[in-house]
Amino acid sequence: MPLTPDQRAEIEAARQSPRPTLRAVSDGMEAHLYRAHEVLDHGFIRVVDYMGDDSAIVQAARVSYGAGTKHVSNDAGLIRYLMRHWHSTPFEMCEVKLHVKLPVFVARQWIRHRTANVNEYSARYSILDREFYIPDPAQLAAQSTVNNQGRGAVLQGAEAARVLETLKRDAATAYDHYEDMLSQEGQQGLARELARMNLPMNIYTQWYWKTDLHNLFHFLRLRADAHAQYEIRIYAEAIAATVRDWVPLAFAAFEDYRMGGVTLSSRAISLLKRRLAGETVDQDSSGMSKGEWREFVELWG
Amino acid sequence: MPLTPDQRAEIEAARQSPRPTLRAVSDGMEAHLYRAHEVLDHGFIRVVDYMGDDSAIVQAARVSYGAGTKHVSNDAGLIRYLMRHWHSTPFEMCEVKLHVKLPVFVARQWIRHRTANVNEYSARYSILDREFYIPDPAQLAAQSTVNNQGRGAVLQGAEAARVLETLKRDAATAYDHYEDMLSQEGQQGLARELARMNLPMNIYTQWYWKTDLHNLFHFLRLRADAHAQYEIRIYAEAIAATVRDWVPLAFAAFEDYRMGGVTLSSRAISLLKRRLAGETVDQDSSGMSKGEWREFVELWG
Amino acid sequence: MPLTPDQRAEIEAARQSPRPTLRAVSDGMEAHLYRAHEVLDHGFIRVVDYMGDDSAIVQAARVSYGAGTKHVSNDAGLIRYLMRHWHSTPFEMCEVKLHVKLPVFVARQWIRHRTANVNEYSARYSILDREFYIPDPAQLAAQSTVNNQGRGAVLQGAEAARVLETLKRDAATAYDHYEDMLSQEGQQGLARELARMNLPMNIYTQWYWKTDLHNLFHFLRLRADAHAQYEIRIYAEAIAATVRDWVPLAFAAFEDYRMGGVTLSSRAISLLKRRLAGETVDQDSSGMSKGEWREFVELWG
Amino acid sequence: MPLTPDQRAEIEAARQSPRPTLRAVSDGMEAHLYRAHEVLDHGFIRVVDYMGDDSAIVQAARVSYGAGTKHVSNDAGLIRYLMRHWHSTPFEMCEVKLHVKLPVFVARQWIRHRTANVNEYSARYSILDREFYIPDPAQLAAQSTVNNQGRGAVLQGAEAARVLETLKRDAATAYDHYEDMLSQEGQQGLARELARMNLPMNIYTQWYWKTDLHNLFHFLRLRADAHAQYEIRIYAEAIAATVRDWVPLAFAAFEDYRMGGVTLSSRAISLLKRRLAGETVDQDSSGMSKGEWREFVELWG
Repeated sequence: MPLTPDQRAEIEAARQSPRPTLRAVSDGMEAHLYRAHEVLDHGFIRVVDYMGDDSAIVQAARVSYGAGTKHVSNDAGLIRYLMRHWHSTPFEMCEVKLHVKLPVFVARQWIRHRTANVNEYSARYSILDREFYIPDPAQLAAQSTVNNQGRGAVLQGAEAARVLETLKRDAATAYDHYEDMLSQEGQQGLARELARMNLPMNIYTQWYWKTDLHNLFHFLRLRADAHAQYEIRIYAEAIAATVRDWVPLAFAAFEDYRMGGVTLSSRAISLLKRRLAGETVDQDSSGMSKGEWREFVELWG
Repeated sequence: MPLTPDQRAEIEAARQSPRPTLRAVSDGMEAHLYRAHEVLDHGFIRVVDYMGDDSAIVQAARVSYGAGTKHVSNDAGLIRYLMRHWHSTPFEMCEVKLHVKLPVFVARQWIRHRTANVNEYSARYSILDREFYIPDPAQLAAQSTVNNQGRGAVLQGAEAARVLETLKRDAATAYDHYEDMLSQEGQQGLARELARMNLPMNIYTQWYWKTDLHNLFHFLRLRADAHAQYEIRIYAEAIAATVRDWVPLAFAAFEDYRMGGVTLSSRAISLLKRRLAGETVDQDSSGMSKGEWREFVELWG
Repeated sequence: MPLTPDQRAEIEAARQSPRPTLRAVSDGMEAHLYRAHEVLDHGFIRVVDYMGDDSAIVQAARVSYGAGTKHVSNDAGLIRYLMRHWHSTPFEMCEVKLHVKLPVFVARQWIRHRTANVNEYSARYSILDREFYIPDPAQLAAQSTVNNQGRGAVLQGAEAARVLETLKRDAATAYDHYEDMLSQEGQQGLARELARMNLPMNIYTQWYWKTDLHNLFHFLRLRADAHAQYEIRIYAEAIAATVRDWVPLAFAAFEDYRMGGVTLSSRAISLLKRRLAGETVDQDSSGMSKGEWREFVELWG
Repeated sequence: MPLTPDQRAEIEAARQSPRPTLRAVSDGMEAHLYRAHEVLDHGFIRVVDYMGDDSAIVQAARVSYGAGTKHVSNDAGLIRYLMRHWHSTPFEMCEVKLHVKLPVFVARQWIRHRTANVNEYSARYSILDREFYIPDPAQLAAQSTVNNQGRGAVLQGAEAARVLETLKRDAATAYDHYEDMLSQEGQQGLARELARMNLPMNIYTQWYWKTDLHNLFHFLRLRADAHAQYEIRIYAEAIAATVRDWVPLAFAAFEDYRMGGVTLSSRAISLLKRRLAGETVDQDSSGMSKGEWREFVELWG
C-alpha cells in the first residue's frame, strides 16, 4: 500500500476546498487532482497541478496562424492537423505537475528526459523509507534470447522462488545495515550522503516532475511503448490515463498519429508502393537489413 | 490604444465566469488574469494562465529536502534560503503564460531567452496590422558617447522632430507598399511570406510566451536591469509588477538577492576587506581593469 | 557578392595552416572549413568548427549498449538502426558551428529552434551594412490560393517589376534615413539601438550558430522540407550539403528515414492494409478529414 | 586501478596518430586527450573530444558586438568583461566531451544538470562489472551535527572498521546474487533489466557526457564548491584541471568571478556600506536571519 491513512486523509482534505479561478479548467483533470494512482507495489503517480486544456492548444494555434486557421471547422480538426504536421508549440502551452513515487532504477531511465523540472527527495538531507520494489511473479521474466534488451518467458518454480527470495533478503539486509550505519547509539553515525550508497536500486524514491504536454507526449510515446521496460511502462500508462481525461482531443490525436502510428523510411515506402502495384517483394530486393525487413513484415505481413 | 472595444469586452467577459478548481490559487494573480497592461504606444502584456504560488515553491522544496527543511521556521525564510543558495528547481515549479504585443526589434531580443514556449503570430499565414512603435519624445535619446550600447541625452528641437517624422513616414510608406504588394485588385498579389520583408522592425507582433518562475526571474534580472534597452525594460517592469502580486514572498527574495544584489569577484572581495581594515585602495593596487575599477567605485564609493 | 576580397583572403589564410590534432577528423568537413557557401543574394553559410564524425556516433552507441551492439556487423548498419529506432543521444555527440549571414525575416524563423547556441551581430553596438535581400524574379511568387502559408505562380510583367522596384526603393530609403538618424554631423545622432527600428526585415544580419547533429537533423527535416519557405530552405540545403560530407553514414540514414520517410497514423495504416488486401478505399470509409485524405492520396495514389 | 592494461594500450595507441586539422587547436587540451585522470577508487574522467579555445570565445563576442569590442585591448580583458557582465553566449561556443566512470549515486547528482548530452552504459543491454566505490578511511565521515546535508568528524576505530566491512560485504553479496540471477546454468536466467535492481548505488557506471563551456562552468561552480559532496567534488576538480589547460583565460576569469566570487544581497550591500562608513553592525539591525548573518560574518569578519 503506497499511502498511509494520514496521507489519504490529507489528500481528501485537499479535495474538499474548491476555490474560484478565472483560468481554464479541465473537469476531467480536476477529478484526478491529488489522488494517488497506485503503480507497482509501493509506487504511485498523483497530479498535483496542471495548466491549460484542449482549448488552450487551439487558442495558441490561432494566435500563431491568425486567419490561417479559420478554414479548419472545429477544435478537434485543428488539433489533429497540428499533430499530423508536427506543430509542437501549441501543445507546449499546456503544463502538468506530477508527484511520483518510483524505484530508483526506474527514476534513472525517466530522468533521461531532460526537458522537465524535477524536485527529488534528497537522501543527503533525509533518510529513505524501507520500501523496495519486488516484482510480481508474473513479471519475473527471463532474459530474452532474441532481444538484447528484452524479456523472455516468465520464470517458474524453484528459480522464480529463489530470485524473489534473493531480492527480498538482499534489500532487507542492505536496509538493516543502512540503519545501523546511520545510527548514533553508541557511535557517531555515518553521514547520510554516504550511507545511502549501500542501498539497492529497487528502493523507492519520489519526486515532483513538471513538464509540458508536447514533451509529455514524447515521454509517453517512448515509455508507454511495447518495447519499454515494464516497470516504467506502467507509470507511463497511468499518466496516459490522466492525460486522456485532461485533454481528450489532443490525446485522441496523439493516439492516432503517435502511439498507433509508424514512421516509414523511403525504402519502406517504395516497397509498399511495389506491393500496392501487385508486385511480390522479398528482403533481397528490398535493400533492407535483416532486422529492418523483419520489422517491415511484422507490420505489413 | 492597444485594445479595441471588442477586445476589452472579450476580456471583461472572460473575467465574469469564475469556475471552481482544486488547484493552488493566487488571488493576487487572479486579479490580473486576461487584463491588458499597456506598454509603449500599442503594446501590452496580459497574464493568460499561471500555475502555482509561493506555497508550491515551499512544497517542492520540502519534498526535496524532507526533514532537512523543518528547521526553517516559515515559508518566507525558506524561500529566502532557497534564493540565497541558488536552489533553482523549486522556483521552476511555478509557471506563467503571457500574451504579449511588442515591436519586432524587442521580440528579437526577448527570444534570446531560450527556455520558454512561444507561439508567435505568423506573417506567413496572416496579414500584420498597421501598428508601429514610435518613441515618445522623452525616449528619443542620442547614442551614448561613453557606452557602445547605451543612450545619451534626449534629442531636442529640429533633430528630434526630424527623427520622429522620419520614423512615422517610413513606417507608413512601408506599410502602404506592403498592402499594395499583397493586394489582388487587378493583380495576383505577392505571397504574404515575401511581402512581410518590406516591413520595418518597429512594427508590432504578438505572441503567447510561457516560462517557469526561475527562468522568468533570470529574464527579469537581465531585462528589468538599468542597462537593458528601455523598450524591453518596460515590458520587464510590467511583468515584474504582476509577479509581485502572484508570488509575493519569492518576488521579495528575488528583489533582495538578484535585482538589488551584486556579484563580487575575488579581487573585489580582497579590496573590500582591505578597505574594511582601514586601508585606502586605488586602481593600481587593485589588479582591476579601468572598467572594472569604475564599476567598483560606482558601487562602493 | 557576399564576401569582400579581404574576407576571401582571410579565409584562404585560415586554410593555409593545418595543425596536428589527436581528435576525430572528418576529411569531408575539413574541405568545407571556413569556406563561404553563397546563399541568396548576399548571404552565406560557413562551417567554422565541428566535433566528431560517423565513428563518434558509433562509439557513443557502443558505450551505451555495450555488448548489445556487437551483433550489428558494421557502422553503417548500427547508424541505420539508431536512426530507425529514434535513438537520438548518439547523434548528439557530434557538434557543428556555423557562421551564417541571412535576412532578418529568415533569422526570425531560424531562431525558433531553441536547442542551439547563438551569437548574433548586435545592432545596439554596431551599425548594420547596407545589404538587403531582393528576391530573384524566379522566386517572386504570388500568394497560394489553396495554401494559407504557401506560394502560387510566379509574378510576371508589370506586377513583378513593380514589386521588385518597391522592395529596392523602400530598402534604400529606409537605410538612407537610418544613416541620417545616426549621423552626428551637426547633430547628436540617434542611439543605434533606436535607429535600427527603421530598417526593414530583408536587411541582412549574421550570427554564429552552434548545435548538435540530432538537433541539426531536426532543423533540416523541417527547413529543408518542400513546405518550408524557399528563403530558409536554401540555407538548409546548403547546410545539408556540408553534413553529407561530414557524416556520410548518418546523413544517408537521415535521408532514408527522415527526409524521404513519412509518418503514418493508425488510420492510414489500416487503410493501407485494406488496400494491400485488395480492397478499394475512399474518403468516406477512411475516417480521415478532407485534408488528411488528400495528403494520403498524394503519397499512395 | 580503473584501467586495464588493454585500455591503457588503447589510449596510448589513440595518442600516437595526430592528424592535420584546420580547426582551432588547444595544445593544453591535446595533452589531455584520451588520457584517464583517476578519481576515487575505480573512477576516472577522460577528455575524448573538444571544440574551440579561448580565441573562439573572443571571436564569437566580436561577431556579436562588432566594433563595440574594439576598445577592449586584448583577449584576456574581453573575456574578463564577458564573465563580469554575465554574457554567457560566447562561452557556449566551446564544447567538450568527457568519458566518465563514476558510482551510480554520484551519477544521480550529476544528471540533474540537464543542459548536456549523455550516453550512459546500459544495464538493460549489458552486464555491469564488479566494481564498487568503497570510501577511503579519510573520507568516512559522520553526519554533521549542524548541517543537514554535510559531514562531520571522520569515523574512527571500531565504528569505521564496521562501516567499511559492511559496505564491502553487502556489495560483494549483492553482486554475487546479481550474477546468480543472471546465470543460465541449469536455469533460464533473469532478464538483465530486472537483475540490475539488486545492485547497490555505489556500483560504478560510465557515460559519455558532452556540454558547452558555459554550462560546464555552472556545473563546476556548484560541484567544485566546498559544500558539494566530496564524491562529486573530486570529479569536478579533475575536470577543472583540464579546463584550466584548455581555455586558460576563460578559466582564470571563472575562478575570479565565480569560484572565488560571492553574491551579495541588497541587505548585505547596505550593511557593508555602513561598516565602510565606520559603523558597527549586528544581526539585530541587519534585517538578516540567523543563518544569513552567520554566512555574512564568516566572509567579512
